[in-house]
Amino acid sequence: MDLALERTRVLQRDAEWAAAASEGHDLERVLSFWTDDAVLLAPGLAAMVGKDALRQYVQGSMEIPGFRITWRSTDVTFSPDGNLAYMFGRNAVTVNTPNGTPNTTEGRAVTIWRREVDGEWRCAVDIWNAESAS
Amino acid sequence: MDLALERTRVLQRDAEWAAAASEGHDLERVLSFWTDDAVLLAPGLAAMVGKDALRQYVQGSMEIPGFRITWRSTDVTFSPDGNLAYMFGRNAVTVNTPNGTPNTTEGRAVTIWRREVDGEWRCAVDIWNAESAS
Repeated sequence: MDLALERTRVLQRDAEWAAAASEGHDLERVLSFWTDDAVLLAPGLAAMVGKDALRQYVQGSMEIPGFRITWRSTDVTFSPDGNLAYMFGRNAVTVNTPNGTPNTTEGRAVTIWRREVDGEWRCAVDIWNAESAS
Repeated sequence: MDLALERTRVLQRDAEWAAAASEGHDLERVLSFWTDDAVLLAPGLAAMVGKDALRQYVQGSMEIPGFRITWRSTDVTFSPDGNLAYMFGRNAVTVNTPNGTPNTTEGRAVTIWRREVDGEWRCAVDIWNAESAS
């Protein structure tokens, strides 16, 4: 397997995912980047496992006043066979405070990606936390 | 590769690591379970990368009054070649509050493990967050 090519592919996938998520209107497209069994560990929330839980979370997020998420990932590491990868990212989540002022929390993320049988990379694990105490 | 055997091995490694960390006195033994280039993303702290940063962190932790960390990991997933693995865990970090009362924060962790050239599993990425807003 050409890992340099896979590195470009998976970072491109992540960038497309981040763009779709930050636009915040195409729910099914945002969901399509996760595996069916993906696990999302968002700070302060119970673990979300699988597409139904993720759909509920993303849909709910899109309805929060002022909600916006952006991220950028780097530093991909592959298993030697090129079928599993993880990367580090930095994200920012903005929501409006009760008085309508945007409040942004920055975080560091780890995502784990699986190259599935169709050859496409999808995110199987998604966890982040904040560098600063909130 | 016998993945059932590797599953037992890596969970055993993690359990030995958790025991050493919770005993909290053998610094070098605790450090030996991480790869030399390991990345630790602890909530509220800057990223720690590599053994020197990890040594400083663990040593500092051992000096915090009432500090104790415990964890237990489950659900190992391997790359098909059996050289990279990730697992989920639950941890608890206790420190004393200023008046000396122990205060425990529970978290969910993701650790990523690499089977190194000597055949031993070591942790390359370590990140967690709290389920409840602190």
